[in-house]
Amino acid sequence: MNIKISGKGLTKFGELWDKSLFDLILDSATEAMDEAKITPKDIEAVFVGNMLYSRLAGQDHLGAAVASRLNIDGFSTKVESACASGGVAVHLAVNALKSGMYKNVLVIGAEKMTDATSNQVTAALMGAGSESERRAGLTFPALYALMANAHMQKYKTTREQLAAVAVKNHYHASLNKKAHFPFEISIEKVINGPRISSPFTLFDASPISDGAASIVLTSDEKRSGVEIVGSAVATDTLDLSTRESLTELKATKKAAQAALKQAGVKIDDINTVEVHDCFTIAEILAMEDLGFCKKGEGGKFIESGITKLGGRIPVNTSGGLKACGHPVGATGVKQIIELAQQLEGISGDRQVKNAKYALAQNVGGTGATVVVHILRKEEI
Amino acid sequence: MNIKISGKGLTKFGELWDKSLFDLILDSATEAMDEAKITPKDIEAVFVGNMLYSRLAGQDHLGAAVASRLNIDGFSTKVESACASGGVAVHLAVNALKSGMYKNVLVIGAEKMTDATSNQVTAALMGAGSESERRAGLTFPALYALMANAHMQKYKTTREQLAAVAVKNHYHASLNKKAHFPFEISIEKVINGPRISSPFTLFDASPISDGAASIVLTSDEKRSGVEIVGSAVATDTLDLSTRESLTELKATKKAAQAALKQAGVKIDDINTVEVHDCFTIAEILAMEDLGFCKKGEGGKFIESGITKLGGRIPVNTSGGLKACGHPVGATGVKQIIELAQQLEGISGDRQVKNAKYALAQNVGGTGATVVVHILRKEEI
Repeated sequence: MNIKISGKGLTKFGELWDKSLFDLILDSATEAMDEAKITPKDIEAVFVGNMLYSRLAGQDHLGAAVASRLNIDGFSTKVESACASGGVAVHLAVNALKSGMYKNVLVIGAEKMTDATSNQVTAALMGAGSESERRAGLTFPALYALMANAHMQKYKTTREQLAAVAVKNHYHASLNKKAHFPFEISIEKVINGPRISSPFTLFDASPISDGAASIVLTSDEKRSGVEIVGSAVATDTLDLSTRESLTELKATKKAAQAALKQAGVKIDDINTVEVHDCFTIAEILAMEDLGFCKKGEGGKFIESGITKLGGRIPVNTSGGLKACGHPVGATGVKQIIELAQQLEGISGDRQVKNAKYALAQNVGGTGATVVVHILRKEEI
Repeated sequence: MNIKISGKGLTKFGELWDKSLFDLILDSATEAMDEAKITPKDIEAVFVGNMLYSRLAGQDHLGAAVASRLNIDGFSTKVESACASGGVAVHLAVNALKSGMYKNVLVIGAEKMTDATSNQVTAALMGAGSESERRAGLTFPALYALMANAHMQKYKTTREQLAAVAVKNHYHASLNKKAHFPFEISIEKVINGPRISSPFTLFDASPISDGAASIVLTSDEKRSGVEIVGSAVATDTLDLSTRESLTELKATKKAAQAALKQAGVKIDDINTVEVHDCFTIAEILAMEDLGFCKKGEGGKFIESGITKLGGRIPVNTSGGLKACGHPVGATGVKQIIELAQQLEGISGDRQVKNAKYALAQNVGGTGATVVVHILRKEEI
C-alpha cells in the first residue's frame, strides 16, 4: 500500500499575536484539504500533534475541539510526545492508513506559545523532561548544553562549528517567507550573543514560536502526492543522566535504521534532510547518528558546507527549528511539508536539485522519543 | 488478521495513597506481560491513555517516561482524548497491529487523581469540555444534569430509574474485589444523598479514583486470547449547547454502527456490555444509542432488571464507572479487561453465562468522543 501526501498547509511561523491556536489550525488544515481537493466529510480520521495547549490553555480534548470546528465527525484524537508530537501524529496516521481502516486522514501539528509568559512556557516545556530533571531545576538549554560540552570535550568540536549550524539555518530561512527569522546572521553574532547556558548563546537556540502545519495523507491509489515510504519511532530513557552516552541519541539510530529498512534505501540515497535542531548541537548529533558522517565529525561536516543549499546533502532548507521557528507540536509536520515541497520541485529559491528521497528526524525531549520518516518523490 | 488480547493487568481502583502513577502503571503492565508470557523487549509499541498527568503533575512526555521504566525502546506515546483516552489508546493499538508494522503492543490506561485537591481535579476535568463551557462555570455534573433533565422532561424518565443504574452497578461492584466501592446501595440512599446538581445526588456520579489497566494486544497467530473484532471512534461537537439533541449521543450511534459492521454482528448478538456511566443518565443514553432499547425507553429498560447480572444483557458487570471507579485514562482499558474476562469465563461470582460477544463504549466529555469496541470469545 502506498501512502501519499495529497495536501499540505502551513501557516507562517512566528509571534502571531492576532491568531489563536484554532485560527492557525483551521488555516493550515483548510489549505491542506484544498490542495488535496477533499472536503471535511471525506476525512475519516484526524491526528492532532500538540504539546502545550493543555498546560497553557486548559483544553484536554483537543482532538474533538478541532474536529468540531472542521465539521469532521470521524475519529479525532490528540497525540502528545513532547516536541515529537507532530512526528508521532504522522506515524499514527501512517499506521491508520496501513491498517486499511481509513483511506483519507488529516494530520495537524500546532502550537500557540506566545500567549503565555516565557516563565510559563519554560516551565511547561520541562514537561518533556524527567521528574528528577525538573526537580534539579534543569531547563532544556541546560540539558542540551551538557550534551554540547560533552561533545566538545570528547571530539574537539569547536564553538564555531556549533555556530555554523545556526548561520546555515538562518541563511536557509532567509529564503523562506514562512520562517520566524527570515534573515541571515554571522558566526560572530552567534558567539557574542547573550549567553543562555554555556556554551550556548541565544543564537544557538530555537525560538518560542506560534504556527501550525497540516497534511492530508491518503492510501487512495487515484490520488497523487509525495510518498511516505518509511515511518518509525524509537524510545530512549527519559532522563539524560541515565543514558550510556551524552554524545549520541540511540533512538535516532534505531528509528533511522527501521525507517530506512522499510523504505529499502541506504542513508546515502537520501538527498535532503530536515532534522530537529532545537539547539545547534542537536543538528551535529543528528548528522552523526543518522549516519551522514562518522561519530564525532558532525561539527566538521557542517562547517564544510556539505549541508548548505548547493552542497551535497542540504539539511534544514526550511531554516530548521532554529530559524524557521519551533512551534513545538507543529515542527514534526512542518518538516514533512518542507521535504514534500522539495521532492515536488516547488521550493523556489531554496530548491534542492534532483531530490528523490528525503528524511525527517523529529526529537522529543533530549532524545527520549525520536521519529524518522522517509519520503520519496512520486514516480509519474 | 486477528487481533487478540494475550495479556491483561488491572490494579485495584480506589484512593490508592501509597501508589504513584508509575507504580500503578508498572503493576498492571507487568501483570499483563506476565499473562501474555512476553518480555518488554518483545513489546514493539506502547500506547498510554492518560488525561490529567500533564495538568496535575507537569509531565508531558509520558510515553517515553513509561517506556523507560519498562525497559522498552520501541515506539511509545501518550494518547489523550479526555475520558476516552483509554479507549482511543486501544483503537490506535488495533490500527498499529492491523498496519502490519507491529506484532505485539502494550496498551496502558492510567490515572492518579487523588494526589490533587478536589478543586484542582474538578478544574482539570473541565479540560474535557469546551472553552465556552469552562467560561460559563459549568462542571461535568452540571452538564450531565442538563442531559438528565431533558431526558426526564421529554421521555418521563423517573428519578428512580436514574437511581436504578447506580443501585445495579453497586450490586455488580459488590462482587468485584478491584472495585472502588465494593458494596450495595439502595434507591433511597441514591435519591436522598447530598445533592450535587439537580437531579443528581452524589450517588449518581462516578468517583475520583486512582487505578491502571493494561493489555497486551497481538496479531501473532500462535498466541491466544479474546479477539477484538470491531474498533471504531466517532466525534461530535465538543460544546453540548451546539448539539441537535441533549438526549442522544450521535457519536455513540456512529461508532457502534461502524464497530458492529466490522465485527459482522448485530446489536442483538451482544451478550454483555460495559458502558461509560460517568453519571447515571449516561448509562440510560448508552442503552438507547447503542440500540438495546428504543430512544426514551432506557430508564424502563434498566429498571426492568434486564441489564442486571442474571438478566438478558448484563451491563457494567465490573460495577461500571459509578461503582468500580473512574480513573479517567484507565476506564477505557478496564472495560476491555472486564469483557475479556467474561468471554474467557473467569469472572467468578459475576460471570455472564454463555457470552460470545461483548461491547465496550467509552465516552470523552459529554460525548464529543465515543469509542466502541466489540470483543469475541476465542474459538478453540
